[in-house]
Amino acid sequence: MATDWKSIAAQKKSAIEATIPAEWRLETLPADDSILSFPKSSGILTQDELAITESSATDLVRDLAAGNLTSVSVTTAFCKRAALAHQLTNCFHEFFPEIALARAKYLDEYLAENKKPVGPLHGLPISLKDQVRIKGLETTMGYVSWIGKKDTDDSVLTTMLLNAGAVLYVKTSVPQSLMVCETINNIFGRTTNPRNKNWSCGGSSGGEGAIVGIRGGIIGVGTDIGGSIRVPAAFNFLYGLRPSHGRLPYARMANSMEGQETIHSVCGPLTHSIADMRLFVTSVLSQKPWSYDSKVVPMPWREEEEQVIRSKISSKSLTLGYFSCDGEVLPHPPVLRAVQTVVDRLSKAGHTILPWEPYKHPYAVDLANRVYASDGGVDIFAALNASGEPAIPNIADLVNPNLPKMNVNELWEVQLQKWTYQSEYLTKIREFEAKIGKELDAIIAPITPTAAIRHNQFKYYGYASAINVLDFTSVVVPVTFADKAVDVRNEGFEPLGEMDRVVQGEYDPDAYHSAPVAVQIIGRRLTEERIMAIAEEVGRLLGNEITP
Amino acid sequence: MATDWKSIAAQKKSAIEATIPAEWRLETLPADDSILSFPKSSGILTQDELAITESSATDLVRDLAAGNLTSVSVTTAFCKRAALAHQLTNCFHEFFPEIALARAKYLDEYLAENKKPVGPLHGLPISLKDQVRIKGLETTMGYVSWIGKKDTDDSVLTTMLLNAGAVLYVKTSVPQSLMVCETINNIFGRTTNPRNKNWSCGGSSGGEGAIVGIRGGIIGVGTDIGGSIRVPAAFNFLYGLRPSHGRLPYARMANSMEGQETIHSVCGPLTHSIADMRLFVTSVLSQKPWSYDSKVVPMPWREEEEQVIRSKISSKSLTLGYFSCDGEVLPHPPVLRAVQTVVDRLSKAGHTILPWEPYKHPYAVDLANRVYASDGGVDIFAALNASGEPAIPNIADLVNPNLPKMNVNELWEVQLQKWTYQSEYLTKIREFEAKIGKELDAIIAPITPTAAIRHNQFKYYGYASAINVLDFTSVVVPVTFADKAVDVRNEGFEPLGEMDRVVQGEYDPDAYHSAPVAVQIIGRRLTEERIMAIAEEVGRLLGNEITP
Repeated sequence: MATDWKSIAAQKKSAIEATIPAEWRLETLPADDSILSFPKSSGILTQDELAITESSATDLVRDLAAGNLTSVSVTTAFCKRAALAHQLTNCFHEFFPEIALARAKYLDEYLAENKKPVGPLHGLPISLKDQVRIKGLETTMGYVSWIGKKDTDDSVLTTMLLNAGAVLYVKTSVPQSLMVCETINNIFGRTTNPRNKNWSCGGSSGGEGAIVGIRGGIIGVGTDIGGSIRVPAAFNFLYGLRPSHGRLPYARMANSMEGQETIHSVCGPLTHSIADMRLFVTSVLSQKPWSYDSKVVPMPWREEEEQVIRSKISSKSLTLGYFSCDGEVLPHPPVLRAVQTVVDRLSKAGHTILPWEPYKHPYAVDLANRVYASDGGVDIFAALNASGEPAIPNIADLVNPNLPKMNVNELWEVQLQKWTYQSEYLTKIREFEAKIGKELDAIIAPITPTAAIRHNQFKYYGYASAINVLDFTSVVVPVTFADKAVDVRNEGFEPLGEMDRVVQGEYDPDAYHSAPVAVQIIGRRLTEERIMAIAEEVGRLLGNEITP
Repeated sequence: MATDWKSIAAQKKSAIEATIPAEWRLETLPADDSILSFPKSSGILTQDELAITESSATDLVRDLAAGNLTSVSVTTAFCKRAALAHQLTNCFHEFFPEIALARAKYLDEYLAENKKPVGPLHGLPISLKDQVRIKGLETTMGYVSWIGKKDTDDSVLTTMLLNAGAVLYVKTSVPQSLMVCETINNIFGRTTNPRNKNWSCGGSSGGEGAIVGIRGGIIGVGTDIGGSIRVPAAFNFLYGLRPSHGRLPYARMANSMEGQETIHSVCGPLTHSIADMRLFVTSVLSQKPWSYDSKVVPMPWREEEEQVIRSKISSKSLTLGYFSCDGEVLPHPPVLRAVQTVVDRLSKAGHTILPWEPYKHPYAVDLANRVYASDGGVDIFAALNASGEPAIPNIADLVNPNLPKMNVNELWEVQLQKWTYQSEYLTKIREFEAKIGKELDAIIAPITPTAAIRHNQFKYYGYASAINVLDFTSVVVPVTFADKAVDVRNEGFEPLGEMDRVVQGEYDPDAYHSAPVAVQIIGRRLTEERIMAIAEEVGRLLGNEITP
């Protein structure tokens, strides 16, 4: 048995490759620019399987519950397409089609026998970021030292999904440490964007971005402590939900810096539509996660909150704020255009959309960075040192073993600063509302300063991480694609600072041509019902949303 | 101007004494055993004023809103009785009848002019623990070094209470550091129990226990990180609510160890009835505190949750657990009798009440103690050293400057242990429910191992602090009084350990005769509506509750 980390990692990688049946393997890979469409022409999926994987989760669960589709057929289709996704983007950490198909068979038999589904996700495959534990499988999270340790218990979310009838079949790639927004680790290497191998799939839920982006998954589960759901959603033209802490269950997931509660990591879905996102959230909430995970607020899905927004949509009376620049880093031209596009569409539809002054975002971003590095990288480097594997280059920006550590009193001071800042932000919202005499329904903003980024170029997390500091609900909505013909370089650019200069310097209209661009829609804590309804309307106005 | 701490403290104490108008001062104090009833015979309050102060908040706000009572008359009555309360128990930190009466006058004029009240607490005096900030007044929290610093902003709770129409008139005593359950500090000395000078009023919201106990206040605001609302409620025959974290606003209150978030301190009311408690909670929630304090969950009062319990009460189908001993310290005979009394009454009323096995409470108590001491007392001793005042003796048990400090990684480990423990407790509840095939509505338990305790004898916080670790909702219900004729010494007592031996050794049937005894009613996180409704029914069965 190998003992050096490289051999251990290589064995693990080979073992995962070997889980792909021979008949689903590709002999030759497609050209770089036809990866996304390759599953259609690969010959590995039947026409029915292609139709299944290109359907919506909402339609699939309806047909599964009615017995019009079997879970075995749906699971087979997604397992096949996931196998292609892995060969095309390198997105697997664990793949277990046999377990999935056995589960699907059980569900089909249950339905036949009981004439009713197990739950609202009956028979539907769900893909999981490799932090979610499944009893009997491994969770490496990309750490070589974690290889070979089988989980002895399910995460609470696993239990909720199984109770709701889901089929689990794959756990997907993350960057070493989870603390960066690209996806690379020393076991599996790099995961690439299914739209272009030169672009990142985002991170840390990058494997979910890639697999759902190429429809090897229909609903993916990610986590987000500084953009890790929203960035891969944005880079793969998907919807992504960062719920507020306490809405969805995180208990018993693996994590970096476990027990760190100053800025909570949260879990949420990446989907092709808000309808599918709502299906996921309502299905999990229907299982009463607060009876299992003490951090979950006992708050069922609030139809009446959704209805408030639907009424405002009907009467064209949404009131929204927006900003394009957070005061630290100016986004690239495609992102500025995306924000403006959303503003224009909402305005044209009759809604009120007003400039929002982002309140002390650079302060929040600095606070987040201090929290991420508060243990001086001790936790992450302990996981690395246990095998001797080196740190991936991206980590050095955020956590490294030379950082000073906080003591407990310093951490409390940061926590007090966070609470004060959050409450000041609420004051700014109340003042804004008092001035305009109306409720502010949401804020539209960039989620990254770039379209789907070139490898090793992700430097600025602030558009995402300021929202994590606020613990606001945020939904990413795909908007458009970079276009070299219109998104020309910002020639008169004067940098706000060094980070701004570096980020803007990365823009290259040719290299980013066709890269996905998104915005995020932000609301106060625990406003998932409202923000998802607004995101749905924005998607509808953009023509990117399936109308429910 | 004095610079030594003793002189500074003495000046502050004199200044507060001087806020009591001459006509409200007592020339001679009553005998020790007639303090509680003394306001009736003092001659300082008129018959109307006695009636007002012995009414309920629920009745008072009804009469105030209808214009049947003026706020000036109600405020005058409570200011007078509070002045007596201070002279009898030493419960003031700040007293400002002139500000209160000016506010009352404004509210009376507002009602006359607008024919409607400002809000649900229109004209009602509310007393505040000296952590709640009021712009322009001092918050010393008993620290000599904090004397002379006027607050520049209101706490969020202050804003909510004022917006709801309340009148603020007094801030009451706390122990130095807030971290003990008796009330003594180097500025004001000791606060005593209005029922017996030899007993503690409890702590840390001890001033609130005393002032509401003797009806110098009708609804008092306390805070609780390890029993600090529930213990003074219990020791003064009051109802006390420790809501779960995030239900009521704490932002901008003063505190010890500010920014400590591992076990959150929470605020809540001490009252004479559940009806008054509900009035307070619904009034604060009606002001949408989540729009001001980022830690407050956007959860209005849920009438439907209350109704679930009311229906079970009607159909005699409550299902409750109970325990008398947490496995670490056996309560004194009066407390064991109180638990049994509640069990008997509920059982006789037709409800189901079953033994509950307290799950790893000693583990939780130890975890709490590690959190309270996690900075090695640095924060508290900084506040002491700034003036040179000494620590009160009680602190040494919990925090002292010789304790080891945790580092950030150790704190994260404790936070992970907490989350795991909390979630395991939920599993125990689910398993219990599965076994009996019914929902567990609440758990009945002691809140302290003793009746209202003799001074300097409070040693064991575990019945309270385990619930803080769980962040469960808890309501204290007054049950009975120690009775030397029935609560005889436990002669066959065999101690579970040293703490058990020490606590049991303190019991003396004569010394505790007539001391108040309570239980707490415990429910899962954020179940205030349900637990208050159960507490109301228990109070009704005991004959201690005003029926709404």
